[in-house]
Amino acid sequence: MDPRTGLPVVGMVGAGQLARMTHQAGIALGASLHLLAADRRDGAALVAADVTVGDFLDYDTLLGFADGCDVLTFDHEHVPGELLRKLEAAGKVVLPGSAALLHAQDKQVMRERLTALGVAVPRWAPVRTAQDIVAFAGNDIAASGARWPVVAKAVRGGYDGRGVWFLSGPDAARELVATGVELIVEERVRLVREVSALVARSPFGQVAAWPVVETVQREGICVEVLAPAPGLDDDRAVAAQRLAIGLAAELGVVGVLAVELLDSGSELLVNELAMRPHNSGHWTIEGSLTSQFEQHLRAVLDYPLGLTTPLAPAVAMANFLGGPSDGAGLDERLHHLFAEDPGIKVHLYGKESRPGRKIGHVTALDDEMPRARARAARGARALGSESA
Amino acid sequence: MDPRTGLPVVGMVGAGQLARMTHQAGIALGASLHLLAADRRDGAALVAADVTVGDFLDYDTLLGFADGCDVLTFDHEHVPGELLRKLEAAGKVVLPGSAALLHAQDKQVMRERLTALGVAVPRWAPVRTAQDIVAFAGNDIAASGARWPVVAKAVRGGYDGRGVWFLSGPDAARELVATGVELIVEERVRLVREVSALVARSPFGQVAAWPVVETVQREGICVEVLAPAPGLDDDRAVAAQRLAIGLAAELGVVGVLAVELLDSGSELLVNELAMRPHNSGHWTIEGSLTSQFEQHLRAVLDYPLGLTTPLAPAVAMANFLGGPSDGAGLDERLHHLFAEDPGIKVHLYGKESRPGRKIGHVTALDDEMPRARARAARGARALGSESA
Repeated sequence: MDPRTGLPVVGMVGAGQLARMTHQAGIALGASLHLLAADRRDGAALVAADVTVGDFLDYDTLLGFADGCDVLTFDHEHVPGELLRKLEAAGKVVLPGSAALLHAQDKQVMRERLTALGVAVPRWAPVRTAQDIVAFAGNDIAASGARWPVVAKAVRGGYDGRGVWFLSGPDAARELVATGVELIVEERVRLVREVSALVARSPFGQVAAWPVVETVQREGICVEVLAPAPGLDDDRAVAAQRLAIGLAAELGVVGVLAVELLDSGSELLVNELAMRPHNSGHWTIEGSLTSQFEQHLRAVLDYPLGLTTPLAPAVAMANFLGGPSDGAGLDERLHHLFAEDPGIKVHLYGKESRPGRKIGHVTALDDEMPRARARAARGARALGSESA
Repeated sequence: MDPRTGLPVVGMVGAGQLARMTHQAGIALGASLHLLAADRRDGAALVAADVTVGDFLDYDTLLGFADGCDVLTFDHEHVPGELLRKLEAAGKVVLPGSAALLHAQDKQVMRERLTALGVAVPRWAPVRTAQDIVAFAGNDIAASGARWPVVAKAVRGGYDGRGVWFLSGPDAARELVATGVELIVEERVRLVREVSALVARSPFGQVAAWPVVETVQREGICVEVLAPAPGLDDDRAVAAQRLAIGLAAELGVVGVLAVELLDSGSELLVNELAMRPHNSGHWTIEGSLTSQFEQHLRAVLDYPLGLTTPLAPAVAMANFLGGPSDGAGLDERLHHLFAEDPGIKVHLYGKESRPGRKIGHVTALDDEMPRARARAARGARALGSESA
């Protein structure tokens, strides 16, 4: 408990944009968010009062930080499971817990568990040698008519397109395996599109789901989210929500769970799991009665969850990336964008502009999706340093 | 400019709940809010990174604070005009400017100016002696059939019901005047209700208006806001918006202007002016596409203003006050409220609970006002320490 407010303290490891937006939500709920930042310049560290700067790979740092918090949660998945289990053994409340979080940290564990649960996933295989990849391309995939390229994924640590490789043949496979990175291999699914089912679950077991959204990636980075997913029929949307709710319960997730799905046209295959507020849920800040950031806090505090009612028929979110500036500063860009579209909502992450780095997003609420989408795309183009 | 972000820095004098909610909005626009707090325990100082603790009555403190900011604005009206004029003379950008702000700081100046502009206000008179009050009660008011009680108001410094006295006769008048406080006297308007017209104006002169709301006071404190004002016909609502827009332009207001109006049944009389985010606009956080806090920042930064489109047919806001606890802590109260009404939105101000002090508010969006109002009232009762 924070003695100043009589309210519980949530400690969030990581101080990027997810922590920054969680802090905004936390202010309304009573100022109880403490941050463990890697750097004083991190986006959330720039705007929050209770910030510890320290190394999340160091157990003593984590333990000292956890001592001041009622519950520990995360802005990213990079804290090693071994350290989380030590914190839990020391009596700290870690949510999502290490056993659940493992499925968002280790793709092989996740694939094995989902396969065992009978959940549809892309065909996949573990990799020890380059020959495993060659055999997978020659055998498993052959059954479905496809061969190379196959998709190799780092078992741990990938995000925003990093840790994913499209391999064109045996030479590429050998080259990648030689780097020593731990891998799994998957078929390259012929996609109609990607969708995301976002839910939150409390320790009590209450679950809330937002409408299923379509996500658009570019070079592995989520650049656009459309809520609700256009043209996704109700049965499949409900099936995706049920799948996410079932996985949250089965894996014991507490907090927000994003289930990223590949839509092959005939079925939805689980691609990735994330157990934290997620890029596919940024639209909920303005577009839903309860944002994913407020809901994540409510979930880890075991407060009853909030209604996820959408506040507009169509909501589109677009990220924008940093890069070489064309001369106009962000302040000038904001002026122009607000003049052009007085209804657009802007979120800046306080990050230095570097090529390929998400530095903010915009959200457009509208009566119909084509217009919402066009407005969001235009807004992201206006603020980003590269044309999108 | 903040060298870390390339965005302008807004300095806000005061770190109460208005600054706290402005900080939430500022995070999205790029982390540019600096606060001058009276105390490290102030509600906004608990949650913001860039906080200076200092005395806003001390010129050097203000000047030093302003040096780090591109524009200076306010959470309250208590900085003396003389100090603001010195800051302006020293080249600091103060918005709203001292000449405009004077009309929210000095009730006599405000009444004189509005009277000169032909704006409807309650009958009033300046007060130098108790005899001025007696004469006003005997003469001016007699014309409208009313006499005692009359309303005496402190010319400067009143808020939340402080600085307002209902005088029952000459003895009460003499007693009050003997305290030496500078006063004006006004007729006691027979009210149907109170309404508030909230607008924002930029230096460029752009103005945006929110729907006119009804405000409900208890012992001089705003406890309930209904948006839009139920049963206010369109003509009168538009007239109130036009009045507020005209006053913003006439007085040169930059930022949010709240025009508090007394509805006598036959006409709307201006009661007070406030030039900052205002209690009657808290509903805009969830209820309007652009909140008053975001709009105030956009206005003082001279960004084009945001759309004020309402996001629900009926929005009700209720404040709750501190006081003696019945035993349940705020955390437990929150659990119960969220279980009872998963759609209610809660805002806690991080303030110590003291009797009569606003410590938070709740907002309910609904399809119809009676239900929105009942939900907000129930939420405030659940979280406040006294039955409302």
